[in-house]
Parts: sequence; structure tokens; C-alpha cells
Amino acid sequence: MPIPFRPNIAAMAGYVPGEQPPAGARLIKLNTNENPYPPSPRVADAIRAELAEPGADEGLRLRLYSDPAATRVCQAAAERAGVDRAQVLAGNGSDELLSVLMRAFAGEGDTVAFPYPTYSLYRTMAEIQGATVETVDFPADYALPEALFGHSAKLVLIANPNSPSGTMCSNDDLARLAESLPNGVVVVDEAYGAFAGESALELIDSHDNLVVVQTLSKSHSLAGMRVGLLFGSAEMVAGLSKVKDSYSLDRLAIAAGAAAIADHAWVSANLERIRATRTRLVAGLAKLAMPSLPSQANFVFVRLGSAERARAAYQHLREHDILVRYFDRRLLADGLRITVGTDDEIDALLAALTEFASS
Amino acid sequence: MPIPFRPNIAAMAGYVPGEQPPAGARLIKLNTNENPYPPSPRVADAIRAELAEPGADEGLRLRLYSDPAATRVCQAAAERAGVDRAQVLAGNGSDELLSVLMRAFAGEGDTVAFPYPTYSLYRTMAEIQGATVETVDFPADYALPEALFGHSAKLVLIANPNSPSGTMCSNDDLARLAESLPNGVVVVDEAYGAFAGESALELIDSHDNLVVVQTLSKSHSLAGMRVGLLFGSAEMVAGLSKVKDSYSLDRLAIAAGAAAIADHAWVSANLERIRATRTRLVAGLAKLAMPSLPSQANFVFVRLGSAERARAAYQHLREHDILVRYFDRRLLADGLRITVGTDDEIDALLAALTEFASS
Repeated sequence: MPIPFRPNIAAMAGYVPGEQPPAGARLIKLNTNENPYPPSPRVADAIRAELAEPGADEGLRLRLYSDPAATRVCQAAAERAGVDRAQVLAGNGSDELLSVLMRAFAGEGDTVAFPYPTYSLYRTMAEIQGATVETVDFPADYALPEALFGHSAKLVLIANPNSPSGTMCSNDDLARLAESLPNGVVVVDEAYGAFAGESALELIDSHDNLVVVQTLSKSHSLAGMRVGLLFGSAEMVAGLSKVKDSYSLDRLAIAAGAAAIADHAWVSANLERIRATRTRLVAGLAKLAMPSLPSQANFVFVRLGSAERARAAYQHLREHDILVRYFDRRLLADGLRITVGTDDEIDALLAALTEFASS
Repeated sequence: MPIPFRPNIAAMAGYVPGEQPPAGARLIKLNTNENPYPPSPRVADAIRAELAEPGADEGLRLRLYSDPAATRVCQAAAERAGVDRAQVLAGNGSDELLSVLMRAFAGEGDTVAFPYPTYSLYRTMAEIQGATVETVDFPADYALPEALFGHSAKLVLIANPNSPSGTMCSNDDLARLAESLPNGVVVVDEAYGAFAGESALELIDSHDNLVVVQTLSKSHSLAGMRVGLLFGSAEMVAGLSKVKDSYSLDRLAIAAGAAAIADHAWVSANLERIRATRTRLVAGLAKLAMPSLPSQANFVFVRLGSAERARAAYQHLREHDILVRYFDRRLLADGLRITVGTDDEIDALLAALTEFASS
């Protein structure tokens, strides 16, 4: 007997994460938008404190379940965002929170809508639900597509800044989108929001059908610890809590997340450095006649003129031990997404691209 | 506009985890089946090694995504179980793996079946899917209910040992169940399997529609780190991988899980101690004329004769700073589930129950 997977599961391809080279590989890794700087030193301190209980065996606390509500993380995030703690839900990375949103709003046959191109995980998650996906192409300037306004979808997902374009939609447009949906929820995925000038957080009190999802992966240098945050109305958070796994954050992720959020000065300094390096990267690419989309994220999407040339540039960088992201997909095949690393890493990238441009 | 949750989500109650008293509370905690002993010292060593990279800033590795496949955990688990690595899937606790199974096999309107009483999360997870739940009461001896054989359900879940009864179904019955289902998958949830004499692992090669789910929470003293394991055919694991979140285990959970599995001598010694204490607990309860179901888990379900007396015993223990689990549900209201703690903890429990019995 064949394994009786649901038809939508049997038919789907599954999400393919960006390449993670083995530990010890001497690569400049600019392919998955990680922060090049370490997390706050308070993170390691908090983890060690959770391991060592005075007068007890080391690691003894790990035998006990973690706090289902991840209270320390939600409390720190609520204070930082200036919202009520009941308006915050913590998840095992923003991936879990996106999955919870899908499961809470989009059943079999329901429609999920989002612009194209964007984060490809949205499609995977909708397919897992057996939901129908409707995408609308971004216009050339990557403004919010008009066809999404008034859409009948149950869920409209907007990555803001968008990936892989790095571009932003305005809060005015997001508010207008939420107001226009007859029966749907807007998810503003701010995975890269900390690198941008605006956040949709200010909209959650006025718009019950809008939630904001953030992550500590990029802004707080904690991709390896999987801490995501969702902000919405208290009623929204209470409903979504029913869908979330009970103990989705482990004890060390809770300790790490709360400590990272508390050290705002550390995070700010890194965000500042990354934005400054982004400016240098964009200028360096422009000098090579490689235009990039206006980025408010910690990556830049650069256009190479043709798919052939983009693939050649990818290959050239790879030969110089520099890993960037190439998407063999419509509207993206002529470009590369480059994570903003350290200044040294970006210097090495620009040197390799200069060599490529003159070859 | 009310928040447009799916009707099944709006209607459901949500899972209520067992009480987690605040840190520092001086309670004997015998309510959520945690292991009373610390995890292997190798766990803390592995976590510290992941934090400290020679010649680099502390915590630097945490900025990078974790291994999506949790290879180190799956490799260690496969070696230990004597199966191929492609037959193992690691999850964020066995809760994530159960949720992945639900999403892969049970869509809206599909049927999910399990005995009653059992782990109440099964119902919650089925409700999240909008699936129909069919339960069949266990017979008085807690053997596998005959009405499940040949059932048309897409998923049949068997906690083995069962919670809160602590009782076991035989592998013969589980094999016969898998063979009898016309189009369904059997999930053997061995969360407490390490404390028992038999495992259904030996059935996965001969039964493509049977999977075994385990967890390091109890046997390996890692409830706080959320590491679950699923064993099945390679085709089963490949299909389920499409549904799982990409990076569901963080870097420290992977390090902790792999280290804990590798130190089998440590785990064995703790399992032995807990089984010996379980024998003492059962004998002590019998002396108080409090009969318990035959347990192969790290807890014992004891019958107090009436719901009133069970609640009074719960309250009496609580007043003595001993926390056990009371279920105000059909077939369970006359009993208490008591986790097997240390010998000292069980001595304190028996002393308090002796006082209760003579009051």
C-alpha cells in the first residue's frame, strides 16, 4: 500500500533552504542574510546562567519543561515595542508563527494571496494546508500591487522589506490593504524590518486584522536560536496561541531571546554598521554598472543584465569562496541576492565582482 | 469585523499544559512526568562548545542558521536504534512531530482515531486540522481496543505506554492494527517507551504505515530542550520532512540532543533508578490500599475510590507542597497520576498519603 499522504502533501515539492556550508568551510557566506556580528555577550551569559543552578547539578534545569508562554521573551519584546504583553506571541522562529497563521486562517480550498516574487516559504506553507495560492506580480517599482486591495483571500502575506528585492511598501498602503479586505488578515512579515526606517507595529492597535511578525534571527544575530515574535490584538494572540505547539521555545532559546532583546544598544550599533556597509555595497555595485533595487534590508538584489551573466557571476564568486544567492525563477534569474556582511567581506565581494566585470 | 479564524479554530478550546510552578517554588513536582535526574554532563559540555568557538567572539555561531536536518541528532539516534539515518526525523519535541503527522495525513473532514483516555493533545491537534475525532474506550485491562482494528481513520494514535494509565499494548497487537487499517497510518507514541520493556521500533521495517515517535524529554532529562524523534520508512520520513519547519531545532538543542543520546550509560543508569523507584512507589501505594494500574512508564495512575477522595488527596498533597496531576475527566476523576521522582520525593509522597489515608 502506498503511504496515504494527503493529496496536497504528496503533490508538493517542499521548501529548499539556502545552502548551509559545513562548519569549518572557509567561505564568505552572503547567501542567507545572517548578521555578520555576534549576538550580545549577554546572550551567552544568560545561557550559562540557565545551565548552572547554584548548589545543583549542572544542566539540572533542562530536565524541566520550558515556560509554554515564553514569558521572559514576550515581556522584553512588549516593553521594547511599547505594547501590552498580551499582544505578543513568541514562536520557534518566525517560521512557526507563519505556520500558525496559515493553520488558523487558511483551510483546504481557502485562498492565500501574496505578491510575486517574495519569500517562497509562503507557497510551501499554503500548500501544506491545501489552500489555493494566488500571487500578484509586483509592479516595476515594487509598490504594493493594486490587485491585492479588496482581495477575498483569507490571508494576505507581505514581506516588508520584501525578499529578495529588499524593497518596502509604506505603512499607508498596508493600512489601506487591511481596511480593504472583506474577510481577510494581513500578515506583515518584518523579518528584515529592523534594517528599515518604518515598522507596521503602529498599525496593530487600529487594525484588528493586521499582524506583524518579526524575528531575532537577523537583527539580533540569533538565526541559530530560532526566536520569532508576533504582534497583534490580544484577541488575535489568544486565538493563535491555541494553534501553537505548547512548549515551542526551549529553555535556552527563551534565555537567549530575552537577553538579546534587553541589550538594545548592542543591536542598534550592529544595525547601524550594517546599514553603513549596505550604502558602501550599493555604491560599489553602481560603480561596476550593476544596478540594484533600493534596499531597506540587510541584503541587496543586484541585476546583471541577463540570466546567463548572473549565473556566471554567481559561479565566479563561488570560485573565490564567496557564497551569494541565485534564484532560478521568473523575474529573478538575471540577478543575485547579496547579504550585507562585514566591510571586509563586502570589499572582497566587490573586488571579485570587479574582476568579473573586466573579464 | 470579528477576526476571521477558521470555524474549527474559533470553536476549539486549546490544550492546557500541566502546571509549571515558578522557578524557586519549593515544591516536589510530580505532575508532568519529568525525569528527576539531571541530563548527562556531556550535554552542558556540548552546549558550551557550541557557544565558544576558538579564536572567535563568544556566541558567534548563534548568528548562523542551525542545520535544517539536525544531522548530528538523527545520526546519533539512528546508530542507537540500529536503523538507517534516512529513517529518522528530528523535531522540536515530539509535539512538533505529532503535529507534522496530523498535517500530513488528516485534512478537514478526515478521521483521526485513538483510544480513550489518552494524551489530550491528540484531540487538540486533530481539531486544529478540522479533522473528525473518533475515540474508543480502552477496556478495563487497557488492551488495544478491538474497535480500532480495521478502522477507516487516516491516523490512529497509540500512546505506548499510555498516559495517564501507564499501561502498554503489545507489539503483536500494534502490528496487527497496522495490518488491519485499509488506508491509515499507525502512530506509536513512545514518549515513555524508554521506561518500558518493549519498543515498536522493530516494526517499522515490516510495516510501512507505522511510525514510532520518541522524545528525549523524559528518558534523557531534556524536557526543557525540546528534542523529539520519529522513526519510519525512508519514504515516510521524506514525505513528513516537507511538512516540518525548516529549522525547527536550534543550535543548542541539536548539540544537547546529540550529546545526550551518545551517553547511553548515563541514561540507562537513570532509567534503572526510576524503574526501581516505581516498584517502591507501587508497593507503597498497595500498602495504603490504593490500587494502581500496572505501569511501564515513569508515572503511576493510582485509584482513590471516588472523585471526591481523589480531589481531597490532591489537595492534601498540595498542602504538603507536593504537586501531582488530577484529571477531571470521565474514567479518570477517581485517580491521580504521580510521576516517579527520586526515592526521597516518593518517600515524602508516601508519608503524606499515609497521613491522608489515616485522616
